[in-house]
Amino acid sequence: MDRGGHAGRDHASPLPVSEFEADTALEAVEGGFAGEITARWNVGGNPNGGYLMALAARAMLAASRRADPLSVTAHYVTAPVPGPVIVRTETARAGRRYSTVAATVAQDGHQRLRVLGALGELDRMQGPTRLAGSPPRIPPPEECVPLLQASERSGSWVPEVMNRYDLRLAPDDLWIDSGAPGVVDEAPLTVTGWIRFADGTEPSTLSLLAFSDAFPPTVLNALDVGWVPTVELTVHVRGRPAPGWVLGTFRTRFLVDGLLEEDGELWGEDGRLLALARQLALVLPRR
Amino acid sequence: MDRGGHAGRDHASPLPVSEFEADTALEAVEGGFAGEITARWNVGGNPNGGYLMALAARAMLAASRRADPLSVTAHYVTAPVPGPVIVRTETARAGRRYSTVAATVAQDGHQRLRVLGALGELDRMQGPTRLAGSPPRIPPPEECVPLLQASERSGSWVPEVMNRYDLRLAPDDLWIDSGAPGVVDEAPLTVTGWIRFADGTEPSTLSLLAFSDAFPPTVLNALDVGWVPTVELTVHVRGRPAPGWVLGTFRTRFLVDGLLEEDGELWGEDGRLLALARQLALVLPRR
Repeated sequence: MDRGGHAGRDHASPLPVSEFEADTALEAVEGGFAGEITARWNVGGNPNGGYLMALAARAMLAASRRADPLSVTAHYVTAPVPGPVIVRTETARAGRRYSTVAATVAQDGHQRLRVLGALGELDRMQGPTRLAGSPPRIPPPEECVPLLQASERSGSWVPEVMNRYDLRLAPDDLWIDSGAPGVVDEAPLTVTGWIRFADGTEPSTLSLLAFSDAFPPTVLNALDVGWVPTVELTVHVRGRPAPGWVLGTFRTRFLVDGLLEEDGELWGEDGRLLALARQLALVLPRR
Repeated sequence: MDRGGHAGRDHASPLPVSEFEADTALEAVEGGFAGEITARWNVGGNPNGGYLMALAARAMLAASRRADPLSVTAHYVTAPVPGPVIVRTETARAGRRYSTVAATVAQDGHQRLRVLGALGELDRMQGPTRLAGSPPRIPPPEECVPLLQASERSGSWVPEVMNRYDLRLAPDDLWIDSGAPGVVDEAPLTVTGWIRFADGTEPSTLSLLAFSDAFPPTVLNALDVGWVPTVELTVHVRGRPAPGWVLGTFRTRFLVDGLLEEDGELWGEDGRLLALARQLALVLPRR
């Protein structure tokens, strides 16, 4: 499905530099991989958790010489700051089908996140296939509402990370049109829309980790909250994305004493499942 | 709801020794916690992954002086054998609301599993509550089918771990009454039933980790498979269980090239959510 090229691709000289590639680039150094956390992926003062997971997973793929993250879990320890970062990896298992790698992301001796992952090659997995689910039906990207446009209209604050994505939300997502957040008791909170990188970078299995934490928190649909910090994020990558848009749908069913799960699915434009994601997050009041 | 006492509780002298408590017991030693993996939780030659996660989480709770696992992820590295085990822990974060702890479970220098967890106190969490889900409706335990009885009837093999649980499956779960596994295309594979420890041990938040991996694999409903080894298991503990039965429901929607997710929910008899679990597993053919 051709939904039109990205501006960055239409003028291909000089070769555009991918923000995602640049900001997750790593160099093998003594004791790990060195990179740089940039402020371009910030939400308020803190780098987005999906971006950080992708950075760590890039090191884990390099350390294990694998192509795809299969399952990655990140626990967020302390808030990173823009600047140099070291990712230390330990390959606990190097099996035929997959490798198991632990990673620690640190700045100046301070642990930022701890990560565990299974990494392999999705195109070499063999076994039965049986599907009992399909992507949600929403209008095509050109009929959805760009997040930046919706936010400008409502006067709400736009985190810096939102400039990295072209994110278009399904028009019937409550929170876009209501100045005051709606409350729908007993219905799951959902956020659904299309996502791609704003600079035209095509999606990879690594970028699915970032996409898994790029949508606005579902809970903004229902509650006047301050911050929704992720305690833990796990992403199962189930398919390699084709070029183009990725469809994301996120759902929260259980908010209990300020703790919630957010369940995400990422789908390709071709209807293939790309990833399942789940995070545990805290709901903190406005300060 | 009183569903009748357990035999072990009716004859309380001498004090019954809990199998779960005994087989996850740990002693602080130089460099970690020492325990013993027993064969009582085996599936074939390998200890059940939920049991192993509970063992690791007990060490993580002790190391961080926390009461409840909030989110725990285990990656299974190599198959443990019955015998001594060492759990090494590292507390990466000791925050007000929760601690983040990494653990390595090893035997004789061989890593068996790697674990990351957030641990805290569920009764001290504060914030809004909003629920959009409820437990599945199935008959009460006395009208469900004990797994052991169903297996004896069908002549199927019963793993040793099944003697640790009183597990009663909803009567309309396909695989109980069909000698040949049924196939229902396009419908999710599900397994639902009641669980408690066979020896009368009442459930704790720690035991929810074991319960999350105690039901028969959903995929047995549809396919003639050999083994369904867990690559990664994550459990979010969302409530402390009251004494009595725990209701578990597990669902698989996406089996792709031999990789599947299994999504679980654990509920109390009182209708409270206790845990959400998800694992990524491989489907391997019979040898």
